[in-house]
Amino acid sequence: MNGTLYGVGVGPGDPELLTLKAVRLINECPVIAYPAPDTGDSLARAIAAPHIPKGRHEIVIRTPMIAGNFPANDVYDHYADKISACLKQGKNVAVLCEGDPFLFGSFMYVYERLSNKFPAQVIPGVSSIGACAAAAGAPLVSRNQVLSILPAPLPEADLKARIIDADAIAIMKVGRHLDKVRRVVDALGLTARAQYVEHATMDTQKVCALSELDSPKVPYFSMILIRKPETTP
Amino acid sequence: MNGTLYGVGVGPGDPELLTLKAVRLINECPVIAYPAPDTGDSLARAIAAPHIPKGRHEIVIRTPMIAGNFPANDVYDHYADKISACLKQGKNVAVLCEGDPFLFGSFMYVYERLSNKFPAQVIPGVSSIGACAAAAGAPLVSRNQVLSILPAPLPEADLKARIIDADAIAIMKVGRHLDKVRRVVDALGLTARAQYVEHATMDTQKVCALSELDSPKVPYFSMILIRKPETTP
Repeated sequence: MNGTLYGVGVGPGDPELLTLKAVRLINECPVIAYPAPDTGDSLARAIAAPHIPKGRHEIVIRTPMIAGNFPANDVYDHYADKISACLKQGKNVAVLCEGDPFLFGSFMYVYERLSNKFPAQVIPGVSSIGACAAAAGAPLVSRNQVLSILPAPLPEADLKARIIDADAIAIMKVGRHLDKVRRVVDALGLTARAQYVEHATMDTQKVCALSELDSPKVPYFSMILIRKPETTP
Repeated sequence: MNGTLYGVGVGPGDPELLTLKAVRLINECPVIAYPAPDTGDSLARAIAAPHIPKGRHEIVIRTPMIAGNFPANDVYDHYADKISACLKQGKNVAVLCEGDPFLFGSFMYVYERLSNKFPAQVIPGVSSIGACAAAAGAPLVSRNQVLSILPAPLPEADLKARIIDADAIAIMKVGRHLDKVRRVVDALGLTARAQYVEHATMDTQKVCALSELDSPKVPYFSMILIRKPETTP
C-alpha cells in the first residue's frame, strides 16, 4: 500500500504557531521533506525543528532561486521522484511548507506531480498575512472590504491599479522591490496608512511605519500592509 | 498591574488546527471570551472546547446579526466594558476568534476599544482561505499571481470588476448571495474554474465544483475559489 503525501503548513516563523495537526504529522511521518535554498539552511525545517524526532529520513528540496526566477521544472521532477520512491515503499511523507501550503507555497509543484498517483492531504497553516497584521498591531481588513494580496515583483502600473481597487492591501516579498513599492504607495498618497513588517513572529521581527523605514535594503520575507478607511458604517 | 488582552485565532473549525500558542494561552488565561450569535452556541468556543479548562470565567459576546447588518457599536461597548473590568483586576483575557483575528474578524471591535488602555497581543490563526484551498485539494495562488479576497455581499458590478482584475479569487460568506455570485462567475466564463467549499475542515465540510452545486441555499460559512491559469511560465 502506498504512503500518503502530506503538505504541512508550519506557519510564519514562530515554532509555537505550528498547529496541533502539523506537530502530530511531523511526529508520525517517517519521512520529512522541506525546501531549502541552494546552499544554507531550510527556514521551514528551522521552524519545525523542535518537533522533528531524531533519526528521521529527511529529504532536502534544494531549489536554486536566482534573482526572482523560479526554479526550473526539472528540479521539482527530481525531488518528486525521491518522494515518490518513499511513498511507493508505503511510507508517509510530510513536506514542510512555510506559512500555508496552498497560498503562494512552492509545495504546489510537489503536489501537482504526485497527487494524481498517491493519496495526498494538505494541512493549512498560519499564513504570513495574518501574522504580519498581528505584528503590526492593526486589523487588516473588516466587514465587506476587499483584501488584495499583491506580490511586490508585479510591474509598477499593475501594482498601482490593484492598490487603487482594493480596500486593504498586503504587498508580499518586498525585498529588492522596495523602491518601486514606495514610489507607488507615495504616488497614491497612502504612505501614512502603510506599515512595514519583516520576519513576522520570528526573533528578527521588525515593524515600523513605512514612512519611518530607513534601511534601503530589506529582506525577501518582508511585507507592506495598507488599510484604507471603511467607507460604509 | 493590568492584565493582557489576547486575541486568539482558533482557526477554521478543526480543533486540531489550533496553534500550540493558542492552546497554551487558552490554558493559561483565567478569563475566556468569545463571540456567539444572539441565541445559540459559539462556533469559536466549540472549536477551542477541548482545550478550555473547567471552571474558567467565560464571557459570551452575543452579537446579533440581522440580514447582513453588522452589530451596533453599543454592543461592543458593552462587552469591552465587561472585558475591561477583568483586565483591571489584573486578569489576562483570551478572546477566541474563528480563523485569524485580524482578517475579517470581529475581534477588531474589541481590540479598537481596549488596545490603547491595556497591553494587547494578537495570535494569528489558520484562516479559512488556506483551509478552503486545502479542502478543495488545489493550490489557490502561486508565484507572482494576485489573490483577491472578496466578500460576497459586494454589489454585483464590484464583484465582477474585481474578479476580472485578479488571478486567484476567494469569495467569502457566500450564503444568501449564491445566485448573484453564480451569475457573475458564469458571465465571466469562469464557472469551470470555480470550486465551492462549505464548513472547511469541520465534520460538515462539503466540497464540489461550482457547476455541480445543486443546493439553492448555502450556509454563511461557504466560499467559492477561482484560479485563473498562470500567464507567465
